[in-house]
Amino acid sequence: MALTGVLRPGHVQMRVLDLEESVKFYRDVVGLVETGRDKQGRVYFKTWDERDHNSFIIRQAATAGLDFYAFKVADKATLDKFDADLRAYGLKTERIAAGDLLETGERVRFQIPTGHLIELYAEKTDVGNGLSYLNPEAWTGLAEKGIAPIRMDHILLYGPDIDGARKIFEDVLGFYLVEHVVLEDDKTDLAIWLSCSTKAHDLAFVRHPEPGKVHHVAFQLESWERVLRAADIMAMNKVNIDIGPTRHGITRGTTIYAFDPSGNRFETYCGGYASYPDWQPIKWTMDEVGRGIFYHNRKLNDTFLTVVT
Amino acid sequence: MALTGVLRPGHVQMRVLDLEESVKFYRDVVGLVETGRDKQGRVYFKTWDERDHNSFIIRQAATAGLDFYAFKVADKATLDKFDADLRAYGLKTERIAAGDLLETGERVRFQIPTGHLIELYAEKTDVGNGLSYLNPEAWTGLAEKGIAPIRMDHILLYGPDIDGARKIFEDVLGFYLVEHVVLEDDKTDLAIWLSCSTKAHDLAFVRHPEPGKVHHVAFQLESWERVLRAADIMAMNKVNIDIGPTRHGITRGTTIYAFDPSGNRFETYCGGYASYPDWQPIKWTMDEVGRGIFYHNRKLNDTFLTVVT
Amino acid sequence: MALTGVLRPGHVQMRVLDLEESVKFYRDVVGLVETGRDKQGRVYFKTWDERDHNSFIIRQAATAGLDFYAFKVADKATLDKFDADLRAYGLKTERIAAGDLLETGERVRFQIPTGHLIELYAEKTDVGNGLSYLNPEAWTGLAEKGIAPIRMDHILLYGPDIDGARKIFEDVLGFYLVEHVVLEDDKTDLAIWLSCSTKAHDLAFVRHPEPGKVHHVAFQLESWERVLRAADIMAMNKVNIDIGPTRHGITRGTTIYAFDPSGNRFETYCGGYASYPDWQPIKWTMDEVGRGIFYHNRKLNDTFLTVVT
Amino acid sequence: MALTGVLRPGHVQMRVLDLEESVKFYRDVVGLVETGRDKQGRVYFKTWDERDHNSFIIRQAATAGLDFYAFKVADKATLDKFDADLRAYGLKTERIAAGDLLETGERVRFQIPTGHLIELYAEKTDVGNGLSYLNPEAWTGLAEKGIAPIRMDHILLYGPDIDGARKIFEDVLGFYLVEHVVLEDDKTDLAIWLSCSTKAHDLAFVRHPEPGKVHHVAFQLESWERVLRAADIMAMNKVNIDIGPTRHGITRGTTIYAFDPSGNRFETYCGGYASYPDWQPIKWTMDEVGRGIFYHNRKLNDTFLTVVT
Repeated sequence: MALTGVLRPGHVQMRVLDLEESVKFYRDVVGLVETGRDKQGRVYFKTWDERDHNSFIIRQAATAGLDFYAFKVADKATLDKFDADLRAYGLKTERIAAGDLLETGERVRFQIPTGHLIELYAEKTDVGNGLSYLNPEAWTGLAEKGIAPIRMDHILLYGPDIDGARKIFEDVLGFYLVEHVVLEDDKTDLAIWLSCSTKAHDLAFVRHPEPGKVHHVAFQLESWERVLRAADIMAMNKVNIDIGPTRHGITRGTTIYAFDPSGNRFETYCGGYASYPDWQPIKWTMDEVGRGIFYHNRKLNDTFLTVVT
Repeated sequence: MALTGVLRPGHVQMRVLDLEESVKFYRDVVGLVETGRDKQGRVYFKTWDERDHNSFIIRQAATAGLDFYAFKVADKATLDKFDADLRAYGLKTERIAAGDLLETGERVRFQIPTGHLIELYAEKTDVGNGLSYLNPEAWTGLAEKGIAPIRMDHILLYGPDIDGARKIFEDVLGFYLVEHVVLEDDKTDLAIWLSCSTKAHDLAFVRHPEPGKVHHVAFQLESWERVLRAADIMAMNKVNIDIGPTRHGITRGTTIYAFDPSGNRFETYCGGYASYPDWQPIKWTMDEVGRGIFYHNRKLNDTFLTVVT
Repeated sequence: MALTGVLRPGHVQMRVLDLEESVKFYRDVVGLVETGRDKQGRVYFKTWDERDHNSFIIRQAATAGLDFYAFKVADKATLDKFDADLRAYGLKTERIAAGDLLETGERVRFQIPTGHLIELYAEKTDVGNGLSYLNPEAWTGLAEKGIAPIRMDHILLYGPDIDGARKIFEDVLGFYLVEHVVLEDDKTDLAIWLSCSTKAHDLAFVRHPEPGKVHHVAFQLESWERVLRAADIMAMNKVNIDIGPTRHGITRGTTIYAFDPSGNRFETYCGGYASYPDWQPIKWTMDEVGRGIFYHNRKLNDTFLTVVT
Repeated sequence: MALTGVLRPGHVQMRVLDLEESVKFYRDVVGLVETGRDKQGRVYFKTWDERDHNSFIIRQAATAGLDFYAFKVADKATLDKFDADLRAYGLKTERIAAGDLLETGERVRFQIPTGHLIELYAEKTDVGNGLSYLNPEAWTGLAEKGIAPIRMDHILLYGPDIDGARKIFEDVLGFYLVEHVVLEDDKTDLAIWLSCSTKAHDLAFVRHPEPGKVHHVAFQLESWERVLRAADIMAMNKVNIDIGPTRHGITRGTTIYAFDPSGNRFETYCGGYASYPDWQPIKWTMDEVGRGIFYHNRKLNDTFLTVVT
């Protein structure tokens, strides 16, 4: 009870064009902690403050983009129940053996109607955040190595049938709608923000003709001053900034969007309100969506709806 | 699933010595929004950003202190199930009719072994936060009237059998332990921090001989700069500050403790980490508890363990 | 000695297209305090924390832009000496009687080679900042009415002969160069930042064919969090934001540029380093000027070099 | 003109009980940059953002405390003029040869009526702040090594004849009074804050029976968030914090006071208003001095008036 079922976004695997260049980027600029490499050549990262072994995984490929996005669930029994529920719902699920991902238990993988691969898992080794479980300090030096976000926070996926995706997350996995953008017909959602917790979004979708696309992976920062620091570090490292620092109208978070060396967009994000499932969702209409996305200048930039990987 | 069962702290009712003086204090200094008064003379408040009708209620009495602390649960069925579960656990529960508290549904009340009255309820009228559910702005002028916290966040209760209390919250209501302070015997908890969400605490207890006591009600602020602003506003209004601005080692939050005109301590609180039920609890020992409570000067002030209402 | 001669930017007079619309804008959105109106119909403002009667004056006219920019000097004797020095330098000066501007002493006005009118004066009535000179508080409620900057901080002027202007400010008025942008010939300054204090700029110039133009008047904010708040307030009031929040490479300040209802650009500015006259000026070259102006995205926006009033 | 004569506090030499322990403290905890050691065994530091070779010098001695405090003046001619003016005023001055302090020109030393040695000098080698004078970045990694203040900012001296000291700084060196605390007789100053710039204090005095004592040397931080970070770093390094984070009523700055390993108090300071010599000084009376010193809890702590070195 309270917080159960799906706990949180757990890991995401991204494709990059040049592995070592990307390792340098995510380790030295974004400030993730490299926690391992596997036989397939994948490189594993976590944020300094995450306790589980990995949350962000990259592999080299000919095209950038998303391999899969995963949620940690409460325990093994929950994993099995979700597997059964997903099959009962009519989805095919695949079991991936424990150990396929380093320090990670068995995964249940399924494809959602937007074309993305989603995974659930119950076990990932607690490697700690570098602070003791006994009388800890408040932070470590790792909190200031690079941008150094707190956690891998959420993802924004682009694909065609976002209604079908939403139905699975709501009906089978217990997510709830926090905000949505409705097209001019006042019926069709252009975009939806879904939560499995008190976060204003653990997952979001934008309707898009091409399946399986990713707009950005978001990393959480602790303060607006850390957003400035992130922008400074991006500037010093010649990172291609898409937009920001600015604020979102949707979720109220403060943000920078930028691109990794392979063209994958990422977000360094702070704040936003805490949401609860008993709350009425917030609705945005197309005449105000610019303000919803970028609150300050109140217009979408050219790349927002078009550049995805 | 995901977030279900107990959602969040919903309301707290406090006793004050002089009602109108306290109304002025909570409205003009703390910056809560007065939302109603009932026939019993109780005055209802919410923070500017809360959507439900009330979260903080005061009534005049000869002694300061806590009447009851309540959690909102997911729905009516959940309320009934918890009622049954609590009775099955061996607790007496009392049903309080809808409408006894303004704009609030039926409540299930029970006494925990620390002597405090706890309530559960499923319904409270959504009066909104002053921002539209359609294309909202990011905040309103109310966000700058007085200290203007975001939400009533948690409570710290003092009483004898905190183990018995913890067992109820964990076993029946689905809470989990986030941090605890252990006495020199390395077995007995002096203090425990419990969560029903991703907050590092929705509720905390300190072991104390006298039952039914309250250490503080906490209100959440958005940033460390808002903590400074809160301290400034307290200074301008001659509020009796207990300690702060400072940081807690436990939960890492930044904080000010101060007293209302009746001597009830309250906290204006920011930050702290987001917690999850699969995480290993953090343990503090008595030789480091000063740093756990007040991270910077690393010692308890005189009043922390002794002054309660 | 120490701080003498020219003390600081004292007032600026701007032309607006619609007086009452502009009064509402500068009072309610920018959060300046209206301190008076004169027989010519001019409206006088100061920031909440300034002590002198006025720093920002508007008058209605058919075209937007700058009437004059003025510096306060140490005393009457200094004013007379500067008048003599400016004449000795070969400039024509005009004496404008005390009282022509409300609560302002006699002014010495002269035109500089960029076509702008500059004034010096020694006296302006101290009306206070609303905080007592005896045992003051740290701030007042006015600090949160609108954007509420701390002071009118500096101006950026566009005109042809910026070298001639610089020579006057350096040789006659004791200013010093803090930073400059040098054209591809490595000799000609495109832009110069000048200080009469420890501010990184009390005045700046960009070389521009048309004389007497103004790029922006800057108002100082106290923190990066106040910059976010300013951007939020601009969004809520549909202010036309040119760029920001972002950081300048030049001076390191954080900033938003936006336009008033008449198209006059203004800046809400925070931070930057403290500068001293014994310091070596910082030089920027054209290949890096984008980063110098807008540190984060490292390119000039379309309007920066073209839109002036 | 504008900023001339005395420019700023330039260096301070402090006595410490254990040199290497102190080097570690000022380098690793305070985050100063060690720039040299001389034949006398003195160790030289600067803050990361200062450009001159040194601002903080320590030497080992049997007792902690201040050796001398120095101001940089505009140039050699100014130095000579001040020397003559001080002698004309009736003070004895001593010339200390260039090179006695590393990378520092000739110094003029004199004793003020509070018993302290004050120095003036015109030359100190510009070693830069690690950012280029050509197209610089906004900050370097040194900005995050330890507390990493921006500059050595001011000093608070304790001694008997603060009126005599003030007269010299005002009448000979061009300082001006910014704030003062007046004793119950409404005539005698208990404390005075003096500026030679737009800083609310470049130097302060408290009346005290024993001559030549120092209350603290202050280092400037960039933001209230950096004050929190400083307190965290102090906690992690078991630094003895005297008070803070809090705000001063006097100057409005935010602050932490703490002690170095030898018992010398230092301040990590942020903010405060910018002051000008034409402003009316702010006066504090003894009934409100607690609020003036520590704005939030509004009382002096035990050590403030008694613990000096």
